[in-house]
Amino acid sequence: MTTTGTETIDWRNCQPVELTDILRHSSEAFYEHGFHGTTVRDIAARVGVTVPALYYHHENKEAILVAVLGAAIADLQVRGEAAIADAGDDPVQQMANLVESVTLHLTVRARLAALDSEYRYLSADARMPYAEVRKANELLTRSVIDRGVEAGVFHVDDTAEATRALLGMLQAIPRWYVDSGPLTPADVATRYVGLSLALLGATPRKD
Amino acid sequence: MTTTGTETIDWRNCQPVELTDILRHSSEAFYEHGFHGTTVRDIAARVGVTVPALYYHHENKEAILVAVLGAAIADLQVRGEAAIADAGDDPVQQMANLVESVTLHLTVRARLAALDSEYRYLSADARMPYAEVRKANELLTRSVIDRGVEAGVFHVDDTAEATRALLGMLQAIPRWYVDSGPLTPADVATRYVGLSLALLGATPRKD
Repeated sequence: MTTTGTETIDWRNCQPVELTDILRHSSEAFYEHGFHGTTVRDIAARVGVTVPALYYHHENKEAILVAVLGAAIADLQVRGEAAIADAGDDPVQQMANLVESVTLHLTVRARLAALDSEYRYLSADARMPYAEVRKANELLTRSVIDRGVEAGVFHVDDTAEATRALLGMLQAIPRWYVDSGPLTPADVATRYVGLSLALLGATPRKD
Repeated sequence: MTTTGTETIDWRNCQPVELTDILRHSSEAFYEHGFHGTTVRDIAARVGVTVPALYYHHENKEAILVAVLGAAIADLQVRGEAAIADAGDDPVQQMANLVESVTLHLTVRARLAALDSEYRYLSADARMPYAEVRKANELLTRSVIDRGVEAGVFHVDDTAEATRALLGMLQAIPRWYVDSGPLTPADVATRYVGLSLALLGATPRKD
């Protein structure tokens, strides 16, 4: 548990992201039919409001996707920072905590997290605020890898490439994880901490 | 280079997949606007034919996506098998060749390969033939990991999980790779061979 400012974040306790009714129904529609396959009319019907009522809250469908994605990634970022802060000075523990925190997000919130791939359909302007937090998220991961390389505990040839590879590996999780399956979010997190540390050359070989 | 049956496959020489005019224009449309954001009318206009002419060749939009995805993954599979056969008995070299072959596909054909994520919008029936080759592709990767674990040269706790993690890491490549960037497909392949072997616990630590 970590205190940032006046707020305490229990980053290991990962619950569904709190969304308004409109955003929650929209995220389900986007998940099932994709951004392009979802109409504002579909969303209004799911929420049980008229289309004009929907437009009162959100300018258009693009603004709704931005709001959904933004809520998810902002929470991911805050939890990641808390997880790192909780690990003390050891880059290996910082990475273990960060990967645990990211994996919990990608499993507990798999359907919401899977919407990340829809962001490429946003216009450049609409995408910008989300792209900024997404970049901050990448830099947070990269900063831990950098510290590990400096400390001699991670062994990678190219930090930027290792960051992309690590995040790519994690971002695939929502594509196969189902909460009715045999693995709990905590099980998946344990496995991906091990895989991530191996990828970064941090774990001792077992032979 | 490998001979399968009467055909010789030069798996390191990865060129764009040969597609009919209809499939080539369709794949560009799907890439730009997504499966749901593309209409049969859009595709016909790009090809320069009428909508009925398009329906003469393909039953519907779903059948077009299946044909595009099928052409890409069938070639990926044949090249992967050739790459492994070319490596002799050493699982480490087999994996290095396989990852090289997959990475060349994911960079040289990045826009086509990125369409893989659209496959979840296919109906269960339409998806089946593609899902089968996709599964065969996963099993091919897994068989090499299994051999490496048996031989004591790979060190992973769970082969199925390591397979998913490895393929997830690779499948992220088309989301960031641009052929106008500083890295050639061969550069990316070299890096991902190293990262993959690290992930599988195969590379000696450098310290």
